[in-house]
Amino acid sequence: MTTRLDLHVRNAERFRSLHHDALPLILPNAWDAASAATLVAGGFGAIATSSGAISRSLGYSDGEGTPADEMFAATARIVAGAAAERGAGLPPVLVTADIETGYGLSAAELVARLVEAGAVGCNLEDSDPRTGKLMSASEQVDRIRAVVRAAHEAGTALVVNARVDLHVRQDGPEHSRLERSMARARLYLDAGADCVFPIMLSDDADIAAYVKGVPGPVNIMARATTPSLRRLAESGVARVTFGSGLHRVALTALKEAAERISRGEGP
Amino acid sequence: MTTRLDLHVRNAERFRSLHHDALPLILPNAWDAASAATLVAGGFGAIATSSGAISRSLGYSDGEGTPADEMFAATARIVAGAAAERGAGLPPVLVTADIETGYGLSAAELVARLVEAGAVGCNLEDSDPRTGKLMSASEQVDRIRAVVRAAHEAGTALVVNARVDLHVRQDGPEHSRLERSMARARLYLDAGADCVFPIMLSDDADIAAYVKGVPGPVNIMARATTPSLRRLAESGVARVTFGSGLHRVALTALKEAAERISRGEGP
Repeated sequence: MTTRLDLHVRNAERFRSLHHDALPLILPNAWDAASAATLVAGGFGAIATSSGAISRSLGYSDGEGTPADEMFAATARIVAGAAAERGAGLPPVLVTADIETGYGLSAAELVARLVEAGAVGCNLEDSDPRTGKLMSASEQVDRIRAVVRAAHEAGTALVVNARVDLHVRQDGPEHSRLERSMARARLYLDAGADCVFPIMLSDDADIAAYVKGVPGPVNIMARATTPSLRRLAESGVARVTFGSGLHRVALTALKEAAERISRGEGP
Repeated sequence: MTTRLDLHVRNAERFRSLHHDALPLILPNAWDAASAATLVAGGFGAIATSSGAISRSLGYSDGEGTPADEMFAATARIVAGAAAERGAGLPPVLVTADIETGYGLSAAELVARLVEAGAVGCNLEDSDPRTGKLMSASEQVDRIRAVVRAAHEAGTALVVNARVDLHVRQDGPEHSRLERSMARARLYLDAGADCVFPIMLSDDADIAAYVKGVPGPVNIMARATTPSLRRLAESGVARVTFGSGLHRVALTALKEAAERISRGEGP
């Protein structure tokens, strides 16, 4: 008999292996069951969540403004919405959860809540969403180690995507930021992270240098100002996500429909 | 001191009066806090919810698939999301809730939940979402009376939009459907409904006949196949809603973004 945990282990391993393919793992970000179903209907077999988009859709501020219970409930709805849309006979949709710094939960609690929600991986941020300040590298290394250990103790192996927030927080002098960011990325990989995520790293040469300078998969957030997906693939980027960009696309379409209605046209 | 109930009474009265303006009351439908905020930012001071869109965003089937608690929680999030976006000094955003047939709740419970969620009005459907069959007109008249009475007993006056489901259910012979629908609409207005809503009534001449044949405000759902908003206004339609049409607009934009991503383009 295949238990729920067996399935989680298998899915997490499948998800991990996708970080080592020749082509980047493209993970569009959902925020609710309907957006997850839409992405799965569009052919995506693995998706991410966006804490920013989830928070906005629930009416909370980004930066851990959403209570942990509501964030995990939203994650579970995304998992269920994706699963319901998936065609029979295909492997389950893999969902990785954006859980910011983990809402103050212990590593063991965090793992339990992620497994319960059906997520096979998570992001872990190294800056405090309330102050915007970076945690010390050693503090974050301890956190990553604790989560990796807790997952093993729980009998599974979550895919940990360690966010490196120097770029988004514009931390320290710019001339040394890339080096300092890569130094952290190396420590995080060494601590057991499966992937590192220098969010807001956008420059083509910097991205290429990062991929070369770091001994593990690199996640880039694609935005209007980042190189094309093709170029990110050429640079060896392992994983591409979109943050709340897709949610903004949907809300922009709604905004435009509202404008058409205001002009007396149809939606 | 203005109590919460005073405010509810005042908002409900303001909402009711908008059904008697020279121009139709245009109510775009939200499904979560972000969509509500987007509509309010677009200048709408009154919005509706869409139970279909809310259900889909939460991963439930339409037709009362969403548990009542979750539907009212979503309604409250929409009210809060709309309020948070509203500019200072402007009157509160008015929200009317699509609550299907009322999830089996008593009239008193229904009123209490709507007031608690901050909704100033609701739809009441006259067909059973599980069977698709119409309730008897007298059953629905009793229900409308009970809700109106319960609102008065609670010290307020919800705006009741009585849905007439003959068209959406394609009930009975087509040649007599318009007359039978208007006969129900008259009974519902007589029972205390503030507005009647022949959902899926789409033909221009039928809509004009309905408005003439019914002594009260008529709500038309605007879709691709209905006359333009300008023409609905000319016909004397009092209120226009969009069901889950705006949610489909947003999801279509997401689908197209997913397709662009699949082609290696940006979102």
